Amino acid sequence: MPAAEADADARATADALLARLRDIVGASHVITDAADQAPFLTDWRRRYTGRALAVVRPGSTQEVAAVVRACADTRTAVVPQGGNTGLVGGATPDASGRAIVLSLRRMNAIREVDAANATLVAEAGCTLAEAQAAAESAGLMLALTLASQGSCTVGGNLSTNAGGVQVLRYGNAREQCLGLEVVTASGDVWNGLSGLRKDNTGYDLRDLFIGAEGTLGVITAACLRLHPKPRARVICLFALDDLHAATRLLMRAQAMAGPALTAFEVFNALCLDLVLKHVDGARAPFAERAPQYALLELSDHESEVHGIALAEAIAAAAIDAGEARDAVIAQNGAQAKALWALRENLSEAQAREGKNLKLDISVPVSRVAAFVDAAREALGSEQPGIRLVTFGHLGDGNLHFNLSPPLDTDGRPEPEASFLARQNAVYRLVHDLVLEHAGSISAEHGIGQLRRDELLRTKPEPALALMRAIKQALDPDDLMNPGKLIPRRPS
Amino acid sequence: MPAAEADADARATADALLARLRDIVGASHVITDAADQAPFLTDWRRRYTGRALAVVRPGSTQEVAAVVRACADTRTAVVPQGGNTGLVGGATPDASGRAIVLSLRRMNAIREVDAANATLVAEAGCTLAEAQAAAESAGLMLALTLASQGSCTVGGNLSTNAGGVQVLRYGNAREQCLGLEVVTASGDVWNGLSGLRKDNTGYDLRDLFIGAEGTLGVITAACLRLHPKPRARVICLFALDDLHAATRLLMRAQAMAGPALTAFEVFNALCLDLVLKHVDGARAPFAERAPQYALLELSDHESEVHGIALAEAIAAAAIDAGEARDAVIAQNGAQAKALWALRENLSEAQAREGKNLKLDISVPVSRVAAFVDAAREALGSEQPGIRLVTFGHLGDGNLHFNLSPPLDTDGRPEPEASFLARQNAVYRLVHDLVLEHAGSISAEHGIGQLRRDELLRTKPEPALALMRAIKQALDPDDLMNPGKLIPRRPS
Repeated sequence: MPAAEADADARATADALLARLRDIVGASHVITDAADQAPFLTDWRRRYTGRALAVVRPGSTQEVAAVVRACADTRTAVVPQGGNTGLVGGATPDASGRAIVLSLRRMNAIREVDAANATLVAEAGCTLAEAQAAAESAGLMLALTLASQGSCTVGGNLSTNAGGVQVLRYGNAREQCLGLEVVTASGDVWNGLSGLRKDNTGYDLRDLFIGAEGTLGVITAACLRLHPKPRARVICLFALDDLHAATRLLMRAQAMAGPALTAFEVFNALCLDLVLKHVDGARAPFAERAPQYALLELSDHESEVHGIALAEAIAAAAIDAGEARDAVIAQNGAQAKALWALRENLSEAQAREGKNLKLDISVPVSRVAAFVDAAREALGSEQPGIRLVTFGHLGDGNLHFNLSPPLDTDGRPEPEASFLARQNAVYRLVHDLVLEHAGSISAEHGIGQLRRDELLRTKPEPALALMRAIKQALDPDDLMNPGKLIPRRPS
Repeated sequence: MPAAEADADARATADALLARLRDIVGASHVITDAADQAPFLTDWRRRYTGRALAVVRPGSTQEVAAVVRACADTRTAVVPQGGNTGLVGGATPDASGRAIVLSLRRMNAIREVDAANATLVAEAGCTLAEAQAAAESAGLMLALTLASQGSCTVGGNLSTNAGGVQVLRYGNAREQCLGLEVVTASGDVWNGLSGLRKDNTGYDLRDLFIGAEGTLGVITAACLRLHPKPRARVICLFALDDLHAATRLLMRAQAMAGPALTAFEVFNALCLDLVLKHVDGARAPFAERAPQYALLELSDHESEVHGIALAEAIAAAAIDAGEARDAVIAQNGAQAKALWALRENLSEAQAREGKNLKLDISVPVSRVAAFVDAAREALGSEQPGIRLVTFGHLGDGNLHFNLSPPLDTDGRPEPEASFLARQNAVYRLVHDLVLEHAGSISAEHGIGQLRRDELLRTKPEPALALMRAIKQALDPDDLMNPGKLIPRRPS
């Protein structure tokens, strides 16, 4: 077929598809205007921008199924999108302009709250905050909290298996989910919205779709597990020598507190420096600067007094053992908030300091300290003066291992362009060390586009072969979020 | 080919395979003698007996891989087997005599215990008790306990996603596993022995093999998550009106105790009657018989005194609210053991009463009481006098809904043959009610052979289609434990 004819043909097919999509979801929910599309075409960190034939906003599971079938019939790629807060470009279409972005945001109903079963059913487009509020209204708690909870969605949280600060006690997004409703690549609806804690009737389909980043089907709703709310949360901050001491403190706190230890966060001295420098009202928690800090959260089902007593016992034992230099325990809500803010304001403080390289890695908890020692040494030789802004979830072995540019003798950072030009070399160097320490190159952010090449470089072939076989089996035409997570099949 | 010639050909192929298997694992580990094979060919409940070309006992992952490749080359079915304690015939070969039984029992090393990471790596053939002991020796706890723990194996526990009494707090076998080593159907080794709590680098292969009953590959080792050991376990028993009251008590206990509530078991009056009748030394825990009992376990990280005080507070509140008739709290280890024994001796007591029909179902916790009411009524009309011996894990919505034959006016049970003849009708009746209550026909025992037809009858087609696609993708020649879980492909 001559090129002009092929173009006309493709155009007619696209027009027919658009008409069919308007029939399914209503004309106002098929966005083709460039300005209206724009917010859906660039990722949150503004690293990726794509194009789309249309942004389609279905209002029900049946509409999602009909849209996916229409796309399957025309071999049109589908890029599912929730709150568009992902950090790896997993919800941004490619540059072809032939895919549709399937926005789940209109599907935001809480379908059910079952207090006696300690579950709720939320549609994929519910924000995490909306789902939290529904749990709260039943006197229970959804144990998933993220900085983006006001805009990220339940579907996105599950598709990326989001983490957060309470994974130590409650697990990742995966562990909060008892069942899913999914539209498969063929446009069928699998209703696996189980509220069951035990169900051994076949392959674990739920966990296959969780973390699949929309490459196997579209999550349209989820049954989420709720937990009893603790009566009090007690926050304490420890000043420490290094991450080796932090690891010993973690073991001690777990032995003494058991499940009451609901968060164990760490950040190094440079992190605190940046917060004190850039965040208004931030105050140094200790008279003396320490190389390393650990922030513990204890959740108490008895009382605040009981929780504080436990925190004091842990602090006393750790200081006695020479494991901690000092500790402060928040005695009220305001103090607790101020301590948490030191940790929570870290990303913003680092952003104000200038561009940085972000890594999201994990290693076994027992190897975190040795890994950071090795990475500091290797980076120091390769990239002299590079600054390690390391913070994260020691209890999960997960560090946000971020790197800021070296400063010159006048304290000015290396120019952005030359620093960022070394990005891939830095990623490779750190990831190689991660693998040496039996770790993961993406602990909680996922693969998307950002880490895809590194995944291919680092994942052992038997695992890739299994992943490809599953993708081929469940999405044979490679239409579900193609190019994300695993590469397109060789054509 | 004439039949005699085909037989000779098959015989030659089988002999060649046996020779190759002997080369791989050593002649003494290829069992062909009928008497020596017998223990591997009949399931624990003695409901299924099969035949095998050989029972093969590899000693390493590489040997397992070589055995699977040899079987793949000759289109020979592989039936993986651990401790052979399964309850659904999942590890028993068919009657053809052409499959091999792959016993993992020789692979029983604890490869690593990492206390700071709170993990251990156990080979598939370790008994659960051996893995528990390894955790214990590191001052930690493996939170999976089963009646069969002295003989069931880690590989079997994971392949069937075993449950037990602490699922309420710690989850199923699935939740105890951070990573797997698996020999795939093609005989490749996937080393996914991650000790990571966060790893978002692709599809969740781990959870696909867990609960797959050996139909997708052979689990050869697992990295298991450990927990801090509580200082004390406090046991209390409640006398209640019915399961509705038990559900309210569960909500109250969860709100008051949070994660300290580590078990919530129920059994009805008939259960206790059978234990008192058949078990030497069993004593009635209350002066008056109650229709329903609930046994709670509180795990305390502070002290026994603290745990008893919490149990007393729960008991006082429940009795005050008219939710419980009475409660006893064990004040020492002997009392605790005596209370647990009432629950643990139930299966044996029921067995002594005679043959019974066993169901292993779950429904949402909020619907357990209504389900049992409905089932009692429906069974009462269909099978007058049938006795409901219901006990189980209310906290997980999981009941062992067992049925004993009616008694005649002289107290003699209906003859076994006529009672068992109604088995399939009873299963169907109960399972239909389970589905009406959004439940599962196999909560923790799995599908195997026993529930396969009921799975096909009750599982929605989109789920079956996904399962078939996965099986086809990962085991295209249907050689991994064929005929279990999902049926053979139509030929």
